[in-house]
Amino acid sequence: MITAKIISIGDELLIGQVINTNASWIAEQLNLIGIKVVEILTIEDDSASIKDAISMAIAQNQIVISTGGLGPTKDDITKQTLASLFNSKLVLNNTILEANIKIFASRNLELTELNKKQAEVPENCEIIENTCGTAAGMWFNTDLGCLISLPGVPYEMKIMMEQKVIPRLKEKYKKQVIIHKTIMTSGLGESFLSERISSWEDNLPKNFKLAYLPQPGILRLRLTAVGEDERKLSTKVDEEINKLSSIIPELIYSYQDESIEESVYKVLRSKELTISTAESCTGGEIARRIVSIPGSSEVFKGAIVAYNNEAKQNLLNVSEEVLYSYGAVSEECVREMAIGAQKLLKTDYSIAVSGIAGPSGGTEKKAVGTVWIAVATPKDIISKKFLFGDNRERNILRASIAALDLLRKVLINNI
Amino acid sequence: MITAKIISIGDELLIGQVINTNASWIAEQLNLIGIKVVEILTIEDDSASIKDAISMAIAQNQIVISTGGLGPTKDDITKQTLASLFNSKLVLNNTILEANIKIFASRNLELTELNKKQAEVPENCEIIENTCGTAAGMWFNTDLGCLISLPGVPYEMKIMMEQKVIPRLKEKYKKQVIIHKTIMTSGLGESFLSERISSWEDNLPKNFKLAYLPQPGILRLRLTAVGEDERKLSTKVDEEINKLSSIIPELIYSYQDESIEESVYKVLRSKELTISTAESCTGGEIARRIVSIPGSSEVFKGAIVAYNNEAKQNLLNVSEEVLYSYGAVSEECVREMAIGAQKLLKTDYSIAVSGIAGPSGGTEKKAVGTVWIAVATPKDIISKKFLFGDNRERNILRASIAALDLLRKVLINNI
Repeated sequence: MITAKIISIGDELLIGQVINTNASWIAEQLNLIGIKVVEILTIEDDSASIKDAISMAIAQNQIVISTGGLGPTKDDITKQTLASLFNSKLVLNNTILEANIKIFASRNLELTELNKKQAEVPENCEIIENTCGTAAGMWFNTDLGCLISLPGVPYEMKIMMEQKVIPRLKEKYKKQVIIHKTIMTSGLGESFLSERISSWEDNLPKNFKLAYLPQPGILRLRLTAVGEDERKLSTKVDEEINKLSSIIPELIYSYQDESIEESVYKVLRSKELTISTAESCTGGEIARRIVSIPGSSEVFKGAIVAYNNEAKQNLLNVSEEVLYSYGAVSEECVREMAIGAQKLLKTDYSIAVSGIAGPSGGTEKKAVGTVWIAVATPKDIISKKFLFGDNRERNILRASIAALDLLRKVLINNI
Repeated sequence: MITAKIISIGDELLIGQVINTNASWIAEQLNLIGIKVVEILTIEDDSASIKDAISMAIAQNQIVISTGGLGPTKDDITKQTLASLFNSKLVLNNTILEANIKIFASRNLELTELNKKQAEVPENCEIIENTCGTAAGMWFNTDLGCLISLPGVPYEMKIMMEQKVIPRLKEKYKKQVIIHKTIMTSGLGESFLSERISSWEDNLPKNFKLAYLPQPGILRLRLTAVGEDERKLSTKVDEEINKLSSIIPELIYSYQDESIEESVYKVLRSKELTISTAESCTGGEIARRIVSIPGSSEVFKGAIVAYNNEAKQNLLNVSEEVLYSYGAVSEECVREMAIGAQKLLKTDYSIAVSGIAGPSGGTEKKAVGTVWIAVATPKDIISKKFLFGDNRERNILRASIAALDLLRKVLINNI
């Protein structure tokens, strides 16, 4: 198996000022071509640390990719350090110099002395051209593994990876096949779901691996299979996923890595249906999730966030009697809210949510975390009670996802 | 100098499916109490890798913090591995068991066999209580460094760090005085703001350091001062902040690390004022932000998300003439939207937003990123045009923050 290690260089990553998105992106790209990333290491802009980390990584992996420390300022020392580590010296590269002069000219600037140094590179490496910036990439081949050094600026690094590094690695390491499949579920927590599918999981082939990736209200399952024959492996993966589907059909909302709102949006759009929401405790979260999808205006007309009782009465036409007899967090109330939004916004469907997000507001009969959800359809209203936890933010997220999931089930007649 | 290493455990981090935000957050927290993070390492859910990484880290650092691998499912093996590494065995901890039974009972669930195992912990570690989940944290002290193992679920890990780990580390490693002050600004990007305050920044005392921490629409400035005498240092910090305030008074919305909605909420509550929103392109984001604050029902009555023109007319009473003559993204439209929400929801103030979030929908006259915002007061309406970028999600966030900032300025008569 071809393995790789990613080394991210930069003090800003170690004080938490910048989140290391480069490493995850590179890991994903390598994974897609069958190269397994076994470690990601973040280190300081410090010569000894860089030398140690890279020497050790090259001894243990065929591929080492480092990012960062290639800028023109004093804190960037990767290039000098690599020259020393690989027993080389920095020499002026005219191709890079000319490219950098051009970049500066296009911004009406002249190259400073500091920037001229960007064209100096170790004599014994191959250059990876940077079409968007002044820091060239470097490729060192050794008897052990190779080191690919790239700039830390995400969009420069990405273009260099996509256009230069990945095609070359693909060519160099004809690989084994790795297939990842993501199964999106909602409605059951990690431990319960794992119990329901335990016999399936235990009987997975040895070259298969299952990972549970929880988010509030959502549980992603990732099935990874490693093999040699792509077609055979793919068939086997499909078989296993079919088995899984028959065990938890109502919990799976998608077979690709997408949010529940994207999944619902696709169904609505394909059926040319419209939707509105009437929200109390979720405060607009459901609407906001739908609106995050480009093109959502095709299906989404609007929302009423009726946060107090007065707004529920005046805007959504919830009756005083319902509020008085059953309260705002009740089946009766969410049903009237759903009808109210559906009528006002003239949509085919509507979702209504009312609950106690907490931390206060709970009573003996209605605990914090109690949430009523209703979905109005052109013919009918479906309503359901949920009991979440005591964390306000999580309750808002879980209620929103449960509401979208209820709508999804209604739409595919799974309820 | 006290050094720390962070070890993130999880296959999902190595295939790029999840970005490692935990490590940056922990690094930031340790940094704030004067502990230097020298490395962040991400490794697989693999027993040998975990043992190697932790042994080496403990030999080289006083503090090692690991996250991940503490869930109830089969892929989570951190706990067993630590028991073996530290020559211990797993024993049932009744305090954890009872706490977990309570968590499940509050959701009307019974503890499964798998979940019972969450209460088994290595005999020779101290337990770090997890008030939000079933996976306890573990603290191992060795003759070399200590290992603190925390769950990978971000909000569980964060609460445990804030409430248990950080206070204890602070106590254990008495150190020089470090003062951090956060100044929250909105309305100007990093490079422009840095130009405006450059002479102040250049003249900061040598023991002061300024960090720019940008988020969409918000720029946090963190001033860090290191010294020996707490009182003297504190006076000096206040002096420098006063100087800064006089340079950018209109950009600063708070001197503590809080969101702009919290800052606005406090003003509204202290003045006993109410607020509503009328949102188009922001899709409920402003309402959602206000509702995220516990107790927001004191000031927030509701929102109308009028995503299409019909909803703007029917719900917010925007006139057909305005929509026809000026369009939905216009000063005239947002002013009518603001009045509509203010009247319907009977609030003292209201915010209205209409814009083109993108990626499509731009025209020659109105580019993607054009956003009109209005604030209705009991006496008046203030409206303002903004031009953001071409990224849909960022435009929604920036428009929401700009709207809240406009309301803030109106409330404190700063406009």
